[in-house]
Amino acid sequence: MHDQPNPERILQTGMAFWASKTLLSAIEMGVFTELARGAEPFDSLRGRLGLHPRSARDFLDALVALGFLQRTGDRYANTPETDLFLDRKKPSYLGGFLEMANHRLYPFWGHLTEALRTGAPQNEAKGGGPGLFEMLYAEPARLKEFLAAMTGVSHVANMRIARAFPWKDYRTFADVGTAQGDLAAQIALANPHLRGVGFDLTEVGPIFEEYIAGVGVADRLTFVAGDFFTQDLPKSDVILMGHILHDWDLPTKKMLVRKAFDAVPAGGAFVVYEAIIDDDRSKNAFGLMMSLNMLIETPAGFDYTGADCQAWMKEAGFSTTRVEPLVGPDSMVVGIK
Amino acid sequence: MHDQPNPERILQTGMAFWASKTLLSAIEMGVFTELARGAEPFDSLRGRLGLHPRSARDFLDALVALGFLQRTGDRYANTPETDLFLDRKKPSYLGGFLEMANHRLYPFWGHLTEALRTGAPQNEAKGGGPGLFEMLYAEPARLKEFLAAMTGVSHVANMRIARAFPWKDYRTFADVGTAQGDLAAQIALANPHLRGVGFDLTEVGPIFEEYIAGVGVADRLTFVAGDFFTQDLPKSDVILMGHILHDWDLPTKKMLVRKAFDAVPAGGAFVVYEAIIDDDRSKNAFGLMMSLNMLIETPAGFDYTGADCQAWMKEAGFSTTRVEPLVGPDSMVVGIK
Repeated sequence: MHDQPNPERILQTGMAFWASKTLLSAIEMGVFTELARGAEPFDSLRGRLGLHPRSARDFLDALVALGFLQRTGDRYANTPETDLFLDRKKPSYLGGFLEMANHRLYPFWGHLTEALRTGAPQNEAKGGGPGLFEMLYAEPARLKEFLAAMTGVSHVANMRIARAFPWKDYRTFADVGTAQGDLAAQIALANPHLRGVGFDLTEVGPIFEEYIAGVGVADRLTFVAGDFFTQDLPKSDVILMGHILHDWDLPTKKMLVRKAFDAVPAGGAFVVYEAIIDDDRSKNAFGLMMSLNMLIETPAGFDYTGADCQAWMKEAGFSTTRVEPLVGPDSMVVGIK
Repeated sequence: MHDQPNPERILQTGMAFWASKTLLSAIEMGVFTELARGAEPFDSLRGRLGLHPRSARDFLDALVALGFLQRTGDRYANTPETDLFLDRKKPSYLGGFLEMANHRLYPFWGHLTEALRTGAPQNEAKGGGPGLFEMLYAEPARLKEFLAAMTGVSHVANMRIARAFPWKDYRTFADVGTAQGDLAAQIALANPHLRGVGFDLTEVGPIFEEYIAGVGVADRLTFVAGDFFTQDLPKSDVILMGHILHDWDLPTKKMLVRKAFDAVPAGGAFVVYEAIIDDDRSKNAFGLMMSLNMLIETPAGFDYTGADCQAWMKEAGFSTTRVEPLVGPDSMVVGIK
């Protein structure tokens, strides 16, 4: 029986959107933020969350069975993980990306087949609407949500980069496309000798400054407003780009790698990181699906392997390059000038 | 580090709809049916599937990384599992439920939060449309797809029931809500001494008879048209109901259990099976989410524990009852009169 083909994984993966939506709706309804105040019996929790009686128990018990809540007698409580990462009131909250996934990506991915057939985005830009970035930057609340989402998807890797990279060899850095600035903040926190710049479009400035002040590293980090399509990057010992290159087509990717090369001194470094695909393109499923997400979200963006990125770096003039795994699906590619 | 809370499972589950949709789109586009003819190089496969060049490789390589395709050099091939279960031309095809999940359940589950707040279905019935079953039975093509979907979700458990139940003690059975009749067919195949009835609404008749003839057991199986709301169930030694009770509210569930009791002789058996929830309601996540699916799909249906079902059986007069796990999330509950 054990050697027989078994359909279990096919059915599990095909229906995995049930578990996604159960968790995403729980985040949307504030289940974990509510329970961060303490364990709560069913009736009061149901009332507070505004759950209709019909399926409230199934919903909460599904979260128990999925491992995101604990239940003792009639009382529900967060797990250590959901209490730390899904309580909106904690600085460790990582739900931003999942909030965006819930109300934007989930419905847009419903049109994946059309995207695969046409090569065209399936988000707000569909049918001639504005592009993703135009749409985001046009409205402050939406921009802030998107930037918080980017922090959510990158925070754990940001902390890793702040420790894994040989920062003692450098004095300054610039994080290009910095968003809220969590990568810059984590690097500054872990390396008191460094001064850094967060580089992004003007609209991002106040959101960056609020976030950086909250982390308590505003004295060593500066926001520089700019557009990497029309301007040079700020000169610094290290240039970083996290979840930036995958948004764009190949000529734009290479242009950005060249601008990074121009911005660092001899011996300086360029650090690219995101869900870098393994060179064989057969293991990092999340990275490959992130590339499909770029199909859904952008006109020509795509993710790429470590070998791809190292080739672009070499072409721009970097003398040595390497790929280092970070955490989960993320790796960083480092080029030394 | 290992004892620190880690957000990996939260992010994986929250984004699991990417993997679902990648697989579901592959089934929709016939990737596995195409490759069942043999391994194929990228260019010809891309052309045959009608994939736009932009993301074709990412899509196919994501299927490799998820374990649903294999790639050797430039040639893609099915895995043993996808070849057996996802080739539409094989009788072992299980993709019916996933096809329905792709074009109905995925978008409907996008409204889970609203369903949880209102207790109201989110399918075609939303906003006063016809109910699920009215909608299905009104159009033969849709009905056939739905009935094939039910075969897909139950086939492996059907084969198990055909072997695990002590059929040698009985001579006749009736499968109530038989759909295509796969459960009846599997029981008849594995137990040549049995004669059986498939009981369902009139519209199902031709679909049942086509399926049963295909399996080659038409000589021992008969279709009986009927409505379990208004008619008695066919008398037989064993009555079976698979994925039936969860569609309905509690009074209807109990009415159906009582009708099963009335239909079997002393010593006869009633077999209920579906994704029966564990009595502690903390382990069978799929069963609990299936109950949320009943929220999405029906006005008052819900899934239930083995203890719940045994209590209804006892109340109807069955003298002994037991719960037996079948396969994956499915169990059967057996009552003996």
